[in-house]
Amino acid sequence: MCPPHFPSSQCNPTDDKMRAFAEQVFASETKSEDIRDEISMFDVAEDCPIMHQEMAHHLHTEDDLAKRISFKAGVFPRSTVLLVRARTGCNVVKTKVNDFVHRVRKPTVNPNLQNSLPSSIHSWSFIISCCMAVIQREIISDNGEISAVQVTMDDFELSCKGLYRALTIREKYMRLAFQRYPRTTSHFLRDIENGLVEPTFRPPPQNGGDPFDTSDLPKNLGYVARMKDGVICVYNDAAAADKHQPKDLPCPDYNTFIDDMNFLIALIAQGPTKTYTHRRLKFLMSKFNVHEMLNEMEEMKELKLNPHRDFYNCRKVDTHIHAAACMNQKHLLRFIKKSYREDADRVVHNLKGREVTMKELFETLNLHPYDLTVDSLDVHAGRQTFQRFDKFNAKYNPVGASELRDLYLKTENHISGEYFATIIKEVAADLEEARYQYAEPRLSIYGCNPSEWTKLSSWFVKHRVYSPQLKWMIQVPRIYDIFRGRDFVPHFGKMLENIFLPVFQATIDPQSNPDLSIFLKHVTGFDSVDDESKHSGHMFSTKSPKPEEWDIVKNPSYTYYIYYMYANIAVLNQLRRQRGMNTFTFRPHCGEAGAITHLLAAFMTADNISHGLNLKKSPVLQYLYFLAQIPIAMSPLSNNSLFLEYAKNPLLEFQKKGLVVSLSTDDPMQFHYTKEPLMEEYAIAAQVFKLSTCDMCEISRNSVLQSGMSHEEKVHNLGERYLEEGPEGNDIRKTNVAQIRMAYRYETLCYELNLIKEGLKTE
Amino acid sequence: MCPPHFPSSQCNPTDDKMRAFAEQVFASETKSEDIRDEISMFDVAEDCPIMHQEMAHHLHTEDDLAKRISFKAGVFPRSTVLLVRARTGCNVVKTKVNDFVHRVRKPTVNPNLQNSLPSSIHSWSFIISCCMAVIQREIISDNGEISAVQVTMDDFELSCKGLYRALTIREKYMRLAFQRYPRTTSHFLRDIENGLVEPTFRPPPQNGGDPFDTSDLPKNLGYVARMKDGVICVYNDAAAADKHQPKDLPCPDYNTFIDDMNFLIALIAQGPTKTYTHRRLKFLMSKFNVHEMLNEMEEMKELKLNPHRDFYNCRKVDTHIHAAACMNQKHLLRFIKKSYREDADRVVHNLKGREVTMKELFETLNLHPYDLTVDSLDVHAGRQTFQRFDKFNAKYNPVGASELRDLYLKTENHISGEYFATIIKEVAADLEEARYQYAEPRLSIYGCNPSEWTKLSSWFVKHRVYSPQLKWMIQVPRIYDIFRGRDFVPHFGKMLENIFLPVFQATIDPQSNPDLSIFLKHVTGFDSVDDESKHSGHMFSTKSPKPEEWDIVKNPSYTYYIYYMYANIAVLNQLRRQRGMNTFTFRPHCGEAGAITHLLAAFMTADNISHGLNLKKSPVLQYLYFLAQIPIAMSPLSNNSLFLEYAKNPLLEFQKKGLVVSLSTDDPMQFHYTKEPLMEEYAIAAQVFKLSTCDMCEISRNSVLQSGMSHEEKVHNLGERYLEEGPEGNDIRKTNVAQIRMAYRYETLCYELNLIKEGLKTE
Repeated sequence: MCPPHFPSSQCNPTDDKMRAFAEQVFASETKSEDIRDEISMFDVAEDCPIMHQEMAHHLHTEDDLAKRISFKAGVFPRSTVLLVRARTGCNVVKTKVNDFVHRVRKPTVNPNLQNSLPSSIHSWSFIISCCMAVIQREIISDNGEISAVQVTMDDFELSCKGLYRALTIREKYMRLAFQRYPRTTSHFLRDIENGLVEPTFRPPPQNGGDPFDTSDLPKNLGYVARMKDGVICVYNDAAAADKHQPKDLPCPDYNTFIDDMNFLIALIAQGPTKTYTHRRLKFLMSKFNVHEMLNEMEEMKELKLNPHRDFYNCRKVDTHIHAAACMNQKHLLRFIKKSYREDADRVVHNLKGREVTMKELFETLNLHPYDLTVDSLDVHAGRQTFQRFDKFNAKYNPVGASELRDLYLKTENHISGEYFATIIKEVAADLEEARYQYAEPRLSIYGCNPSEWTKLSSWFVKHRVYSPQLKWMIQVPRIYDIFRGRDFVPHFGKMLENIFLPVFQATIDPQSNPDLSIFLKHVTGFDSVDDESKHSGHMFSTKSPKPEEWDIVKNPSYTYYIYYMYANIAVLNQLRRQRGMNTFTFRPHCGEAGAITHLLAAFMTADNISHGLNLKKSPVLQYLYFLAQIPIAMSPLSNNSLFLEYAKNPLLEFQKKGLVVSLSTDDPMQFHYTKEPLMEEYAIAAQVFKLSTCDMCEISRNSVLQSGMSHEEKVHNLGERYLEEGPEGNDIRKTNVAQIRMAYRYETLCYELNLIKEGLKTE
Repeated sequence: MCPPHFPSSQCNPTDDKMRAFAEQVFASETKSEDIRDEISMFDVAEDCPIMHQEMAHHLHTEDDLAKRISFKAGVFPRSTVLLVRARTGCNVVKTKVNDFVHRVRKPTVNPNLQNSLPSSIHSWSFIISCCMAVIQREIISDNGEISAVQVTMDDFELSCKGLYRALTIREKYMRLAFQRYPRTTSHFLRDIENGLVEPTFRPPPQNGGDPFDTSDLPKNLGYVARMKDGVICVYNDAAAADKHQPKDLPCPDYNTFIDDMNFLIALIAQGPTKTYTHRRLKFLMSKFNVHEMLNEMEEMKELKLNPHRDFYNCRKVDTHIHAAACMNQKHLLRFIKKSYREDADRVVHNLKGREVTMKELFETLNLHPYDLTVDSLDVHAGRQTFQRFDKFNAKYNPVGASELRDLYLKTENHISGEYFATIIKEVAADLEEARYQYAEPRLSIYGCNPSEWTKLSSWFVKHRVYSPQLKWMIQVPRIYDIFRGRDFVPHFGKMLENIFLPVFQATIDPQSNPDLSIFLKHVTGFDSVDDESKHSGHMFSTKSPKPEEWDIVKNPSYTYYIYYMYANIAVLNQLRRQRGMNTFTFRPHCGEAGAITHLLAAFMTADNISHGLNLKKSPVLQYLYFLAQIPIAMSPLSNNSLFLEYAKNPLLEFQKKGLVVSLSTDDPMQFHYTKEPLMEEYAIAAQVFKLSTCDMCEISRNSVLQSGMSHEEKVHNLGERYLEEGPEGNDIRKTNVAQIRMAYRYETLCYELNLIKEGLKTE
């Protein structure tokens, strides 16, 4: 094993009882859907009557207090600090208010709903005062019960401790891999500022610099990289490797990870914590609704006064899109027809050892591109694909012919992926023309062969598939079982080695593989992809075989995949950071379907995720994703075709509660109709969910934050101080997000974190 | 009154009892919404338990019979006739089958769901056989009850007679005004082919001909046109006019119209008819669902085999769009900025008698266009406009300034509407570029002043606002009360005169007003617009004052407006048809909100309507709209912002039942986000309602049929035989609508009509 491991001092060692419980929970989860139909171990009944009563009480209380409260706020010149001190004294919420606040004139705000519309700052103060009022109500308790939370003190403390520990677990794994963790939450965890950990993304070359320039590749360090127990270890030289004396790169400890995971599994199934988080989430929902009713027009007023910027020229990133389906169906059709007009006699394919021209290829398929339509092309998901991931996958073959997928949508084929490169560059050109849209396309590395990286990067460099609008991601399909079944790999460890070793080697000696080194500069993260609804039946535990021992044909579990991808990325990032290179974020598909444990694994390891639908099923995890502000790239149109009808999509609910959501297309070829798939995605969400401009701009801002855009680009797109949290970090001139909204979000997060702090006090 | 009136021989004179009943029904309808909350007089409870049972029985029956039935179909070469004779002998359904049918090989079709996928034609035959089976089941009854319809023979006959008479009433008014009535329904009404009545629309000039050419304007007929009792009468000369000896132009008879209306009011409130139609509609819904389950893949297969044509290059018409909001918000914003960059020093406005430049105008508004955003422009409907037509109307003012609406969105202003013309031509250019999209923008005639037509047509000709993609419509706002309140008009008759007299005069002597005569060539219909949810409280009856006597400030009822618009259009069309000129269709906004009687008035008078949401409330009217195949231009995105949430829109339900629906944008400026508003409308409907390609192409085809496109263009866009009904009239190569679908629709309509015929037999 690679020492030194991450210190596990912060966590209590998990006892056997907890491990046994975790196993029991896991077993319940992997049962078939029918059996655990009624109420899963992570869920809470929707129609719990106490809940309703409590919420009614909540709203009543807020309303009531709002009328009685008198709220004092000092008025200061521009860029000063507004201190709001709750009467309990238990917490001080600092809200720095900049440019925006100096417009206040009246020092004493006496909110009165019956009055004519208050000015922006009045209602902003008002919403703050509302929050304060609720804090007071909730914290002050005369008996053993927390009045508004309506749980006993014991349960409250138990929940808070569990949540606290869960947050520290995530923080640990994020720091280790140079992934992000919100400052506010981090600050609350230990009341001191920890150094901010951020991934490194490379900015696009300035002033016409060449993105493919190899002149400044660092020299060879001479290190040796080898796989050990599924994780690549780095050694000073071959001798050290043979003796297994790895370099000092922190790496996650396997047993600690399992312990942490078991703790989290137990936590999300723990009664009091389920109740507590469920209530907090309901409260967050109601609170946002109140905010909306009070401040909607004020937010709009702020936006109207914001010159030059509106939803159309807010930067937005398509945070989840697959390169092989990044064009829409009509675009692909046009491209195929054009390529045939120009290249009919070109040799483009190898058909069972015989080189054939495009004309011959189409003849063997009994097709003429001239006759093709989007119907016969048949790459669009329809009613048939709902709940059928297999049918959906088959749609990637134009006209059902894998030969055409090969010719047009692959990087490796008889024409070295030329068509695929061209069509991607056309998509990029459209984005450049649209100016404010970016995308993060995923390219595949399968781990079937160690040469994949070289081929992929050669394709990238040869065809100069670069655009400042595109931030590249690597997706790794979880299809070990298929490769093993065909005897392409001897064991799971080899697959991991094929995926990661070449990247380590290019990091150690960049000049040995210039194409790959250049390509890696443009790669910002790793994704893990496949149908999550497939059960592996395997549980990730201390008894699991090591990757090199995993030689059966069965696929390992989602969590197993996730752990080993994360562990390798973490070590890789340590090495790359040392060399001043860009690091990679881990951004798996997660929670689109399947077991709730997927979301738990991602909570521990992922910088951010795609989908997250299943957070609906676990209030504990949903609340944790809120507290840790984990970005979620949602694709409701994709879900609508595959897993969940549009109107049932939790996007709106998550957004209201304050989870960090962005909108993404997933597969424009399969799901979208218009020339601007990302705008189509936003437009439909806006229409169906009746999003306000502020909502849409908030989602756009989230997408930029979530993305692999470099620090320099984020500064340009979001403003100098984008790393600050709360209204201070928001430059409305760039983002078009109202400061009232930002203050509300910040307030709300601080409030929830402080509640947990209250629960820890008795410790 | 203008003789000769239309013969009322077909209808029994309405007795006083019916009139009294109609008045009672009307009174109930105009009560406030709260009072008639529980069940309106036109509605049927949704959860009627007998209904559910019956439907279950229905489906069971179909399924059962489908397994047992043996169905014989003769196979003939191309373009022959397939006769399907139901065993009851009561009706013969002729289904001419063209190109498509000759692919059949097996003469005897034995449908078996367990078999591998049947070829297209098999399942087509199969669905026909299903329908036949159901006919048999329904018609053969051993007791006094119609088995599947589950109503007594008496009620069945009563309903059928009422529906039959309703259909004859509509046919009468359609023929009178050269509006459309489906051949199939017409044929069924009297078992003989009546000459087909069609409106005349002028094709665009061929081979670069000038659409503004005035050289061939017909000469003056010397007739005199004068208003009499709210309807323009045409006389040979002034002497005849003074003696009121009008020419022989058929015109609706006022009293007959009231009688017909009263009959229909009574019919839609009649218990047995409500029950019968409700059941038929439920049946239509289930039947379509069965069709879909059986034939969806077969329809898709047909479309895949159809070369060159797919949803993208199917012609579609935006059948309902207002010229003043036909550009999207971003387009308007860009236009305003551009106009300022180019024309800042141009005199563009008259501000209280002072001529001001654009720069000065923006200065008085305290604005600089450079700072404008779509947020500050504020022309997009949002959550605030829901159920607030007033707020919605205010959004037409950019930045809330009526001066800017005047400058950019009006035909009459200091710059002679130049900007408005330019922006419309830009929209048309976008449509021309998109190639397969057309639009029918509405321009306003208010009836406030007789010179409106001259000004509007001068604008049209001066700026050459012509495009082959645009078919023009005239919208008349129902705002007499405002004009009367400001004393602009002395009575309602004058408003009608201002609206129609100039058109009559230009029709009689085209050379007297060449601009108007040219403009009228491009106008295809009239629309009636305003907030339908406003109640007038007035009932249209024999006691209603004549328009010339209507001098109170209160607005007449919707029906009153509709009748007088229809009557004038009918006479006008008679005159224009005599002169070989194009005629106008009447296409009011109807059923967006307000009383159900609106939809009744339109049933009698309108070629087709916009919205139709309230058909949800009356099964009788909904069924009649189905039987008479009245096209409905639906705008679910508009409704979503104003009257009805997207997911609740009845579009899908109507489409499934076989009502003729098209999709339209209404106001892209207010509702849409993307550059292609009509595609956005289709895309969202496709996504939310999970429409198949065949559904979307069927809706596109409906939109072309509904539109004011000329015969020549329809032939080009839909095929030579588009006037035929059923599969024969469909050219899949042009429409991309599966013949299976067409056959299903035709079958279904014939079946419902034949059921009514059964009910009439005992007479």
